[in-house]
Amino acid sequence: MTTDKTGLEEGLELSPTFDAAGLVTAVATDAATGELLMVAHMNDEALAKTIASGEAHYYSRSRRKLWRKGEESGHTQRVVEIRVDCDQDAVWLRVEQTGPGACHTGRRSCFYRAVPLGQSGEVRLEFRDADRAFDPKAAYSK
Amino acid sequence: MTTDKTGLEEGLELSPTFDAAGLVTAVATDAATGELLMVAHMNDEALAKTIASGEAHYYSRSRRKLWRKGEESGHTQRVVEIRVDCDQDAVWLRVEQTGPGACHTGRRSCFYRAVPLGQSGEVRLEFRDADRAFDPKAAYSK
Repeated sequence: MTTDKTGLEEGLELSPTFDAAGLVTAVATDAATGELLMVAHMNDEALAKTIASGEAHYYSRSRRKLWRKGEESGHTQRVVEIRVDCDQDAVWLRVEQTGPGACHTGRRSCFYRAVPLGQSGEVRLEFRDADRAFDPKAAYSK
Repeated sequence: MTTDKTGLEEGLELSPTFDAAGLVTAVATDAATGELLMVAHMNDEALAKTIASGEAHYYSRSRRKLWRKGEESGHTQRVVEIRVDCDQDAVWLRVEQTGPGACHTGRRSCFYRAVPLGQSGEVRLEFRDADRAFDPKAAYSK
């Protein structure tokens, strides 16, 4: 594994910089629209399975387990392209999201609230693109 | 601050879920093209300053300090929209990147290498959109 700065940034060896918990950040965008769908994490196994299979796998910090996106809901993510960032502690998945949405709350994207600019002190959010695309109770009851 | 799951996911109070180091993940995309420019982190102060000023501020884990994007290079990020994700541990900045690029290596985006799919074992990267947009030595020598 490459760990020196030049090797990480300019080399062609995949050398993920896992954090103390053994994770890198994973960002999934819609390959067609560029919309940010979700931000999650991957351990070594999730990254390897995603690369080998072309199906997005993540590591759930709350459930402490590897998870194939859509294994419960059926809303899988077919990976069109994977990229890694300069210091190799984040990966970008451009995906085709199958089914109506990526978010466990029922929305297409996890980012369904905006933070209006110019506020200070207690900050109020605004719903944006927050209509539910599916019923989360039905999707996760299987 | 809201900490219960329903409040975090469905409420309109900004209640960032900072990790043990006091950070949330920040993802910056180009507001016009949807291109993923960078993934970084924010502490409470960086988030507050970004919301109040509309200029992207981050927290550098390696340098252990707040940092206004572009303070050295001049390549600032004007924030068009901020969104927060379902569990409020990640924020999405849609930005207008001023200057030629967001990455300290001189590229427009930090994600200038692809991971070809279908590989297992030692994984080889491929440069993609990796031409330098500016000379990092000149930009960071001030």
